Amino acid sequence: MMQTPSFTPLAVVELVSDTKEEAIAWLLSRIRDPQQNGGAELLVEQLGPGVGSQEKENPNLFLVGASRQRLLSGAEDVGLFKEFSDGSMRAFTCANKNNFKDFQGDGDDFFSMAECQYIIKHELDTLRAKDETHVPGYTQVKLYPGKSIIRRLQSKGIMIQMFPIHEKEELKRLSFSWYKKVKLSFQPLDAIRHYYGEGQAFYFGFLEYFTIALLPMALIGVPYYLFDWEDYDKYVVFAVFNLIWCTVILELWKRCSASLAYRWGTLSRKKAFEEPRPGFHGILGFNPVTGREEPLYPNAKRQLRIYLVSLPFVLLCLYLSLYVMMIYFLMEGWALSVHDEEPTFWTGILLFIPSVIYAVVIEIMNLIYRYAAEFLTEWENHRLESSYQNHLVLKVLVFNFFNCFASLFYIAFVMQDMVLLRQSLATLLITSQVLNQFMEAFLPYWLQRRRNKKMIRKVQKRTTLEDKELPLAEQVRLEADMSTYLGTFDDYLEQFLLFGYVSLFSCVYPLAAVLVVLNNITEVYSDAFKMCRVFKRPFSDPAANIGVWQLAFEAMSVIAVVTNFALIGMSPQVRAYFPDSETQLILWTVAAEHGLLAIKFILAFLIPDVPKHIQIKLARLEFESLEALKKKRQPYGG
Amino acid sequence: MMQTPSFTPLAVVELVSDTKEEAIAWLLSRIRDPQQNGGAELLVEQLGPGVGSQEKENPNLFLVGASRQRLLSGAEDVGLFKEFSDGSMRAFTCANKNNFKDFQGDGDDFFSMAECQYIIKHELDTLRAKDETHVPGYTQVKLYPGKSIIRRLQSKGIMIQMFPIHEKEELKRLSFSWYKKVKLSFQPLDAIRHYYGEGQAFYFGFLEYFTIALLPMALIGVPYYLFDWEDYDKYVVFAVFNLIWCTVILELWKRCSASLAYRWGTLSRKKAFEEPRPGFHGILGFNPVTGREEPLYPNAKRQLRIYLVSLPFVLLCLYLSLYVMMIYFLMEGWALSVHDEEPTFWTGILLFIPSVIYAVVIEIMNLIYRYAAEFLTEWENHRLESSYQNHLVLKVLVFNFFNCFASLFYIAFVMQDMVLLRQSLATLLITSQVLNQFMEAFLPYWLQRRRNKKMIRKVQKRTTLEDKELPLAEQVRLEADMSTYLGTFDDYLEQFLLFGYVSLFSCVYPLAAVLVVLNNITEVYSDAFKMCRVFKRPFSDPAANIGVWQLAFEAMSVIAVVTNFALIGMSPQVRAYFPDSETQLILWTVAAEHGLLAIKFILAFLIPDVPKHIQIKLARLEFESLEALKKKRQPYGG
Repeated sequence: MMQTPSFTPLAVVELVSDTKEEAIAWLLSRIRDPQQNGGAELLVEQLGPGVGSQEKENPNLFLVGASRQRLLSGAEDVGLFKEFSDGSMRAFTCANKNNFKDFQGDGDDFFSMAECQYIIKHELDTLRAKDETHVPGYTQVKLYPGKSIIRRLQSKGIMIQMFPIHEKEELKRLSFSWYKKVKLSFQPLDAIRHYYGEGQAFYFGFLEYFTIALLPMALIGVPYYLFDWEDYDKYVVFAVFNLIWCTVILELWKRCSASLAYRWGTLSRKKAFEEPRPGFHGILGFNPVTGREEPLYPNAKRQLRIYLVSLPFVLLCLYLSLYVMMIYFLMEGWALSVHDEEPTFWTGILLFIPSVIYAVVIEIMNLIYRYAAEFLTEWENHRLESSYQNHLVLKVLVFNFFNCFASLFYIAFVMQDMVLLRQSLATLLITSQVLNQFMEAFLPYWLQRRRNKKMIRKVQKRTTLEDKELPLAEQVRLEADMSTYLGTFDDYLEQFLLFGYVSLFSCVYPLAAVLVVLNNITEVYSDAFKMCRVFKRPFSDPAANIGVWQLAFEAMSVIAVVTNFALIGMSPQVRAYFPDSETQLILWTVAAEHGLLAIKFILAFLIPDVPKHIQIKLARLEFESLEALKKKRQPYGG
Repeated sequence: MMQTPSFTPLAVVELVSDTKEEAIAWLLSRIRDPQQNGGAELLVEQLGPGVGSQEKENPNLFLVGASRQRLLSGAEDVGLFKEFSDGSMRAFTCANKNNFKDFQGDGDDFFSMAECQYIIKHELDTLRAKDETHVPGYTQVKLYPGKSIIRRLQSKGIMIQMFPIHEKEELKRLSFSWYKKVKLSFQPLDAIRHYYGEGQAFYFGFLEYFTIALLPMALIGVPYYLFDWEDYDKYVVFAVFNLIWCTVILELWKRCSASLAYRWGTLSRKKAFEEPRPGFHGILGFNPVTGREEPLYPNAKRQLRIYLVSLPFVLLCLYLSLYVMMIYFLMEGWALSVHDEEPTFWTGILLFIPSVIYAVVIEIMNLIYRYAAEFLTEWENHRLESSYQNHLVLKVLVFNFFNCFASLFYIAFVMQDMVLLRQSLATLLITSQVLNQFMEAFLPYWLQRRRNKKMIRKVQKRTTLEDKELPLAEQVRLEADMSTYLGTFDDYLEQFLLFGYVSLFSCVYPLAAVLVVLNNITEVYSDAFKMCRVFKRPFSDPAANIGVWQLAFEAMSVIAVVTNFALIGMSPQVRAYFPDSETQLILWTVAAEHGLLAIKFILAFLIPDVPKHIQIKLARLEFESLEALKKKRQPYGG
């Protein structure tokens, strides 16, 4: 019954269960074909049926692997950076392989499994159609010379998914050093990068950095809360410290991120040429860059869709969110009037109910909007994945910012009720944290656990397992059923909103930083757990920084300067300094605000984005390549 | 008596007249030595004595040229971009030379003279010491293996200068199409670039663009002045238009600049490795980047010099400038009191005298400060020319901004006297324009003309010249005596200050744009004239944009938003809208200001810096080089 593949399986390709035989045969032969015939030259085998297989099991699961030689040449294709013998990071080349640090013998353990899987993914993605006009067996699924076969199969629904498989032993080691140990320590970022790739490691690195960076704010915030310093003089100091601190930590993160990227070899890596994303469609034409025939979609049409449909939709959603907010204030007013009429313990609790309900509604609206935004951005038909991501992030950020903070802005600047502001801020922050932790990790884990147990029980029914390890076939089927990890988007978004809670109104609720630090400490564990146990392993992606999120966090810190100074200007203690003239008060507040904004920009300008020692290392590499080039150009040179 | 060199002379090297014979012989042999022996492989000859040479003439002028073959390989060394046969710009390589567009036969006219001179300069600059320990004849002038000989000679005062020579015929053609024609037309930017290089062409391109971009503001400003619309409602519209227009023109200039840089092949050109600037000194150590032995200067020491000496000095100068401003206001008050006592025609003129004197004093202070700033920045001992330039620009910008605009800020926001503001603005602007044009072009021209005539008379005394052309020896000596063009710094600085006059207080003096447009039209002619007739020809420098000035102009446009909204908020007409509450007025003004700042940043973000069609061309080049790399990597590929 059992069947072991003749090679180390790295990734799995799943086709729909009723795929036509000729399509399968054609795809496998294209994957196996040598490169000079335009194939991917990879190893591929059908996964055997599981123990106690049933009719409903999908037979079309294929294990993909590669020979050692193929992986080496693939690493060159993707431009993988590895550590050189002199400790610098360089693009791997086969010709130079023996000069790389850990290259021994045939280079058996030279690449990590995540790197091998990334290479496999790249080679499958760039497997291109030759002279086929359509997928065999599917005359309606057209193919064009030079276009990616895999993307075509994916967008036409013939291929369900392609995912890398877990490595049981290493995962155990990683999860032990990551979240299973008791004592508090730094995360094993290098091990995370080794197993999940740079994109994941950057998220966890940022999460850890951000949490540690918030500690001073949290520590300073505690006495304010404990001793109930209602004194705004002190709040002003606290707010100014917070604002400058936010700028400094964001700038220092850039340096930290550059160090990590250098260590992981993604800092000076050139971006490969971007292929159109799967799902992009249009009229056949010639790409002006590559000169190849491919679908083109006029930019003007996309702009029309963005400005005539997406933009009004987003505005409508913002309006809806305002409407919900007004309902919340009605509820709030009603609860208050009930409490005022007959104040009991229960009406005291009733006071918090509207905020909790509103927080839950906000989360639900965010979730629904998220789907709508994905649908709309998909419909805008962006050619590149990066452009799709940017438009999606922009849409989601604007709405989430509005949805989460609109009520706070209303309370702060229209109602000018600082007590209510503090109370709302606390309720929103705590409710959204609890909801998030639940939705994000425990719910999927519980679902996964049920599925897992069922599978183990099923296997145990048929065979007696010595150890509790599942055989490969079952393991792969189990992983294929796991939820797909959709990238770090939601995790960053959560941190972005938390950052908003900390920074926007820091001068009225100093405890926010404490709550966020506590949340993030559990977040590290729940996110780590989620990555290791709940989701399918994701393909690693070679990131050099946290991308557009750096910009989003910086924008938030600029908005925070404005809101905090407005709050300070409104405080009775500051007003007391200008008893005669409100004008003077406002002018001084505005002047101070402009001054702080100027300081922010000067700080951002003065702090170099890349640490000096890394700059020197990069300059040395560049100098050496220039020298090498010069030598090559002077064949008659001494 | 006459002596013609055996090659086309491109540049001139001038040594001090009492240079030791062995040093000259050594230098010439190093310049002539073939490259495999570490020489520059250039042609060099001593310039013969002029007609009627006298004792006091410096004999140590050397003409430098190069063989055609040497120029081709030199072009490869400097990474020169030329037009390829398919119309794209590519780095020139000898192996590929026949695929470049205008390469015919031996490539005689392939490079422009400016390009040849740039190559010569690069080859001379990178002529490095081998095993010499000191310059022959000068035991105190040490040499270190691998360091530039020319820079050493320059910083030790043995070499006076090195300059490219003019090309009489082409200069005549250029000056005719540039400033000698009567009808108004665009400048021949490509011809300017051909003769002077990209740096110069960018300045003139920017000057022209800026002047044309100011036209709408000037046109709208005229009726405001003519019909004396004292109406602030209209000024508000005018100011908002101005502010958005400033942002838009700066953003569009980036696109325009990218187009020019693409056309001239400097856009995707990689920066060569930067050598230490001449004059940089320190203790001998090992450069962490190149590993070569060279003088090192600890960064901490430089920082101490910057923060403990330069910064206090700049602050002292700013204080002095404030002090002078206060004297100006005293004079102004005195003139006003005289006029009030006994108003006659002469006292009416007296009213303008303080402003004129102040404007002259400002220009003188700027000039003196400029020298002080150069001295200080030199003393800070920056290793790289770029770092030196940045520190110099920053110092000079801050002081000039302060010096020119402090009085206007004082009048606008402390005295709140709009009539005086308008009058001061007009006087300062007009006086500084007149002074500038005089100091910049006519004074040096007059001095040069005198020298020129003397030389012609001297030559005519000895020989009878058929045509009025000077023989080469005289021509070179004449050019060696011309003033050295110190780069585009002062020209950009002038435009920067003019931009300040236009944008900072645009809502009180709409005529400023008209004056600046008129000034710039004459500026084009006087600058062109100055380049062609007054100054030594400068070496071309391959710029890809206007560098740090883009940032300076953008910073000015941000400051302009703040000042204009403050002026609008102070205007009686706007105040009339909020009769009850000054607070409301200020809050609305601040809100509008923040809104406009946000719009500025969003606009800057939305308008792509490189036009679409150039992005496509760059992407195509990159795609092709990736494909070529792939083919090279797959020797067994089909």
